[in-house]
Amino acid sequence: MTDSYNVAMIGAGFMGAVHSQAWSSVARFFPGPRPVLAVLGARNPESTRAAADRLGWREASTDWREIVARDDIDVVDIATPGDSHAEIAIAALEAGKHVICEKPLANTVEEAEAMTAAAVAARERGVRSMVAFNYRRVPAVALARQYLEEGRLGEIRHVRADYLQDWIADPDFPLVWRLQKERSGSGALGDIGAHVLDLAEHLSGQSIAEVSGTVRTFVERRPLAGASEGLSATAAEEYGEVTVDDAAAVHARLNGGAMGTVEATRFATGRKNAMRIEVNGSLGSIAFDFESMNELLYYDGRIPAADAGFRRILVTEPDHPYAGAWWPPGHGLGYEHAFVHEFADFLAAVADGRDPEPSFEHGLHIQRILDAVIRSAEDESRWTSVGAPVLTTIEGDAR
Amino acid sequence: MTDSYNVAMIGAGFMGAVHSQAWSSVARFFPGPRPVLAVLGARNPESTRAAADRLGWREASTDWREIVARDDIDVVDIATPGDSHAEIAIAALEAGKHVICEKPLANTVEEAEAMTAAAVAARERGVRSMVAFNYRRVPAVALARQYLEEGRLGEIRHVRADYLQDWIADPDFPLVWRLQKERSGSGALGDIGAHVLDLAEHLSGQSIAEVSGTVRTFVERRPLAGASEGLSATAAEEYGEVTVDDAAAVHARLNGGAMGTVEATRFATGRKNAMRIEVNGSLGSIAFDFESMNELLYYDGRIPAADAGFRRILVTEPDHPYAGAWWPPGHGLGYEHAFVHEFADFLAAVADGRDPEPSFEHGLHIQRILDAVIRSAEDESRWTSVGAPVLTTIEGDAR
Amino acid sequence: MTDSYNVAMIGAGFMGAVHSQAWSSVARFFPGPRPVLAVLGARNPESTRAAADRLGWREASTDWREIVARDDIDVVDIATPGDSHAEIAIAALEAGKHVICEKPLANTVEEAEAMTAAAVAARERGVRSMVAFNYRRVPAVALARQYLEEGRLGEIRHVRADYLQDWIADPDFPLVWRLQKERSGSGALGDIGAHVLDLAEHLSGQSIAEVSGTVRTFVERRPLAGASEGLSATAAEEYGEVTVDDAAAVHARLNGGAMGTVEATRFATGRKNAMRIEVNGSLGSIAFDFESMNELLYYDGRIPAADAGFRRILVTEPDHPYAGAWWPPGHGLGYEHAFVHEFADFLAAVADGRDPEPSFEHGLHIQRILDAVIRSAEDESRWTSVGAPVLTTIEGDAR
Amino acid sequence: MTDSYNVAMIGAGFMGAVHSQAWSSVARFFPGPRPVLAVLGARNPESTRAAADRLGWREASTDWREIVARDDIDVVDIATPGDSHAEIAIAALEAGKHVICEKPLANTVEEAEAMTAAAVAARERGVRSMVAFNYRRVPAVALARQYLEEGRLGEIRHVRADYLQDWIADPDFPLVWRLQKERSGSGALGDIGAHVLDLAEHLSGQSIAEVSGTVRTFVERRPLAGASEGLSATAAEEYGEVTVDDAAAVHARLNGGAMGTVEATRFATGRKNAMRIEVNGSLGSIAFDFESMNELLYYDGRIPAADAGFRRILVTEPDHPYAGAWWPPGHGLGYEHAFVHEFADFLAAVADGRDPEPSFEHGLHIQRILDAVIRSAEDESRWTSVGAPVLTTIEGDAR
Repeated sequence: MTDSYNVAMIGAGFMGAVHSQAWSSVARFFPGPRPVLAVLGARNPESTRAAADRLGWREASTDWREIVARDDIDVVDIATPGDSHAEIAIAALEAGKHVICEKPLANTVEEAEAMTAAAVAARERGVRSMVAFNYRRVPAVALARQYLEEGRLGEIRHVRADYLQDWIADPDFPLVWRLQKERSGSGALGDIGAHVLDLAEHLSGQSIAEVSGTVRTFVERRPLAGASEGLSATAAEEYGEVTVDDAAAVHARLNGGAMGTVEATRFATGRKNAMRIEVNGSLGSIAFDFESMNELLYYDGRIPAADAGFRRILVTEPDHPYAGAWWPPGHGLGYEHAFVHEFADFLAAVADGRDPEPSFEHGLHIQRILDAVIRSAEDESRWTSVGAPVLTTIEGDAR
Repeated sequence: MTDSYNVAMIGAGFMGAVHSQAWSSVARFFPGPRPVLAVLGARNPESTRAAADRLGWREASTDWREIVARDDIDVVDIATPGDSHAEIAIAALEAGKHVICEKPLANTVEEAEAMTAAAVAARERGVRSMVAFNYRRVPAVALARQYLEEGRLGEIRHVRADYLQDWIADPDFPLVWRLQKERSGSGALGDIGAHVLDLAEHLSGQSIAEVSGTVRTFVERRPLAGASEGLSATAAEEYGEVTVDDAAAVHARLNGGAMGTVEATRFATGRKNAMRIEVNGSLGSIAFDFESMNELLYYDGRIPAADAGFRRILVTEPDHPYAGAWWPPGHGLGYEHAFVHEFADFLAAVADGRDPEPSFEHGLHIQRILDAVIRSAEDESRWTSVGAPVLTTIEGDAR
Repeated sequence: MTDSYNVAMIGAGFMGAVHSQAWSSVARFFPGPRPVLAVLGARNPESTRAAADRLGWREASTDWREIVARDDIDVVDIATPGDSHAEIAIAALEAGKHVICEKPLANTVEEAEAMTAAAVAARERGVRSMVAFNYRRVPAVALARQYLEEGRLGEIRHVRADYLQDWIADPDFPLVWRLQKERSGSGALGDIGAHVLDLAEHLSGQSIAEVSGTVRTFVERRPLAGASEGLSATAAEEYGEVTVDDAAAVHARLNGGAMGTVEATRFATGRKNAMRIEVNGSLGSIAFDFESMNELLYYDGRIPAADAGFRRILVTEPDHPYAGAWWPPGHGLGYEHAFVHEFADFLAAVADGRDPEPSFEHGLHIQRILDAVIRSAEDESRWTSVGAPVLTTIEGDAR
Repeated sequence: MTDSYNVAMIGAGFMGAVHSQAWSSVARFFPGPRPVLAVLGARNPESTRAAADRLGWREASTDWREIVARDDIDVVDIATPGDSHAEIAIAALEAGKHVICEKPLANTVEEAEAMTAAAVAARERGVRSMVAFNYRRVPAVALARQYLEEGRLGEIRHVRADYLQDWIADPDFPLVWRLQKERSGSGALGDIGAHVLDLAEHLSGQSIAEVSGTVRTFVERRPLAGASEGLSATAAEEYGEVTVDDAAAVHARLNGGAMGTVEATRFATGRKNAMRIEVNGSLGSIAFDFESMNELLYYDGRIPAADAGFRRILVTEPDHPYAGAWWPPGHGLGYEHAFVHEFADFLAAVADGRDPEPSFEHGLHIQRILDAVIRSAEDESRWTSVGAPVLTTIEGDAR
């Protein structure tokens, strides 16, 4: 096993800050190879240099092509908006760099197909790739997955998932890049809906085969964005058109027989990051809400009804996935910890010569679901086939 | 105002017990006319006599036609399965009896249309009618409606409603009448979905104009039912076909611009009577779960984000709708209290010569939504028009 | 078994309304003898007559002595303030009436001793008596007791109980009878503290042997009360002295080795009727909050920590204590239902010739605890002995 | 302002890991001076070297005296068990190092007095010191403090605080150092009770003047400890005596008139790290539970009762104390983040030439409370004076 890997990260926005904190924390809590925060790449020379200093990267660069070409870089971490994922990822894979790419994999199915082809070709040369559906590595979500794998839920009948935010409910919130189709590909659907679509599959063990979808834009014109930071921004005086969805709702047929209902919106006043998922099986159920991220609710239907109830498991025990690496029971984790787990698993897979999960193939599959939702919405919400399902498995993780 | 009304109730099942408790409680807590529990009508002579004794009805009868024809009966309360609603209601209205009828109004749109025509005709003679969507009169729901009417929620963007139960998740649960289309009209859709469809409108102030729906039967054959009581039953050895839906999911377009997602299922393991509804508006949100029926969650989006949060209002204050008639703050109410409120409002409207709400017209409208869901489901979930909307208002209630 | 019992109730305030609703509901849901609401006794002739009509009592009387002397009365239900309990109860017992008396049993230990002596003497003549700690018959509390009896909690280490209200937090709230020592005996301590002291024993299966207590009056003078109703009242212009405690806190040593912490206050702004109790044993824990009265939280410490968590049991299942008599799963009960259960158990015990629980002896024991708390508070909070413990058992209840 | 400070940390146990993660994260999120993780000091040469590597410290040392004597060290962070705090802190202060010391400040009042004298003397030379009550810097707790300072709670009547854990509820759990008085000073009282005593003051703005306390050891002999890590350990075959309390309960009189009830236990089966505090004032209340550390419950008593309720504020907004430095709304923080905030505030105070809060004087005050609780417990729980109160203020923090 290699002792350490030199990481280059492209993108210095909100995601870049999260990734930086995670890369710098991995080795403190997880065995395995150690990431070196080698280069941060972003557009503006000054702000990139300042960000590199603040976030702990040795070097700063404004040229991702140069970064990808460097011999001393082992891993390329893509944390840019979706419109540049394909170009960077393909170049990096061709240059023999292991790639971890933020979700959704790309802005279009075509881009995602090209990226996947590049990943498949690279894999034959031992080059690894992964799409970063970070929420899978929240300990409570990983525990839910474990329960599924252990058969505790039985035959899955329902998957019910909402991702509710409210940060653009105000019509005066400006037209940031996440509201522009050419930058982000889609709106709530791809940004947050992608997460719950991924989890709907991950926590049911089934693939979405068909969808009936609807999308909606509540506020069609917004002030142009001034400076933006994270998910906040200031508004200018001119207006532009919102070209993505504000909300999306999906009915899904899963290939194992489950019935799925999924919703994503940025207009749920009062819901800040309510990624909520519930799975009902013949033997039990689980429920999760990211706003209470250290808890898993579990209903064991095998015990007598008079003794049964949703059990609030604080997922902070030594035997819980990932949690054992951190603090004593009852001492919770935060948002960025899922990224630490993700990077630890990624590095371990790379070091072991395994393919990390979820793969680019899976990223492509989610992209196809997003595309099918849009196509269904444009076709009177008729049921629309997603295309070939891709089953997901995770082995050898730090869980 | 008349001092008292003689009530005849048809139906002695689970609903009959709830109604009896409510009729006998009204006068103890609400001013207005007093109901006299005059006659209980059901099929079996012996069990009806015993039920009348236990539930507090003066007389028992096995012939609803005879009851409807009696001069001394003022009100007919229909608490039978849906297949007999039309026949009884029309006869009662024609006989000049005020009618309160359980939901859904009927098993088909045709029946509901005939009932509504009878109600309209009777109304001209001063005869009143009401369909019993009891959950509207849960104090927390009535408070949510009040907030809506006060403009606290602003422009409504989302209505999100689930009605989750699990009482037939076990495939060995027998084929009770609620699983037979000829008795019940539909399954989860009409039995519990009707409630959340009604509330989706009631709490958004908008009517459902179009739906895209899907229905599902997870267990297609079940043991024939032996004796049944309430929602429980014992199983026989022979099997029969389940002819209704186990679960239904609906996307809705409301006439005021809101986006609705509604789900009803009897297969949500661990959810006993989780009627959950959330409404997101431009100024605020409300959320409710019947499993915590004395609480309303309210988010006031007009206060600064740093001070804001979903507020758990215990709806037990003197100034809360209906609650002031009962116990001191913090002393909650139960399931049957909504029926007490419903009957108090019904009697007050009858005495005042007003039409109680919701009307048979509204019951017909909900029936049309149920029908449109089925038609959409049979047509690849295409958007399907419901037909003319009926706006609902409530005035003069005991709230 | 006698078919029915004629009940006379003394007291027509808030408690009278609750009792009336409960007496009139018993027979509709529980087998056993049927109570007849025969006479309501209170002071004012007109309001008593009106209350009797509204609450469903056949007769009204302003003379409790006359009521107690009547041959046709079987049961006397005492729902007056504490200062008249002793006189009425002793007279009723001596007249051979079965007595159910609201808590606390009396205003002083001396009164409680006299009442208990009367109850013991009456018992030998087959006359029954019971003190009404209603919260024991909330289904969730009864389930907690069942878990204790089944040994699920193991050796009990901690009992932690708060009873928090806020209805007099406003200094302008008037000086109602509950704030006058000569009427009520004590303040928060006896009114609500008595409930949690009783439950601390009931749910630990141990008796409180010693206490270290402190009491506090935050607002020492209040406007004299005008008209009052229930727990609310209007204020006059003159002021009077508050002669009871606003809050009390107790450390307790239980005779089985548990450590108890109990608090009662009417100054917990925002807490309406938060009767919260938690019991921690070597094998498990339970937690309950009356503001969510249909839920019991249960932690089973025998399962692996990674699978364990507080389980929210909706105590509405057919196999749950009392709940099976009412509605289907998930359809909750309200405040008054505990009184229905209490009366059902009382009547069944009377009919069976058994002594209902809790007895006057237990009422006296609780009175001694209240007294010991006051004595400790007056003695620098030194540990103070309660006197001989009385163990409580419940058999043959409708649970 | 100095750009960076060289930090030496003494102690490599569980606390050492938390501190390391926090020191390494400060500069990534907070402006101000940057800490350099210079030296890690602990006893065992090999494990200290390994820990330094894993946790990110440049050097390792087994001699704290040598560390304290080094010219290149600016800050000494003491994360050892309580028995070595005094010796190290005094030496470091005398050597001119700024000191941050874990709580409780010491194992005895005498040690704490000596440390405080050293801190006072050092302060005159510009040397800063701080005792690390980390929970004050949880954003939700800091927000509660802000509400207090803004007068939103009004006159404080009640402070109710429990710190509940269960990690030694099993009698076979071994005799780790935290159960030995000579190492830890006391048991639950000093380890976790100290936190809630501190917060009881911090969130009421009042000082504890007198206490009536009781302590309890449920399991008096335990197997000697084998290897231990964090809060877990393995057991040996021999037994030793537990010399500290398993649980403590305290009634407190605060100098501003509030009534305090505080409990700390390691025997609350099912409670993992339930640090729960509730403050009731004349105008409002707050409630917090560390098991849901990103939430503050706030009841605003100034709005009409019918609209009021405990509001669940997700303390993740840009305008919330500390939270704005991290992630977008709804993306929670974890246990270690409070340490990041603590260190950021400490470094900023040092750089600005201000005294960080809480001071050693405050640490001494808490030590005196702990001592008074023990003395009261040994004196029949009589009210016992704490000694001169020390009011706490916080200015200039990163909040």
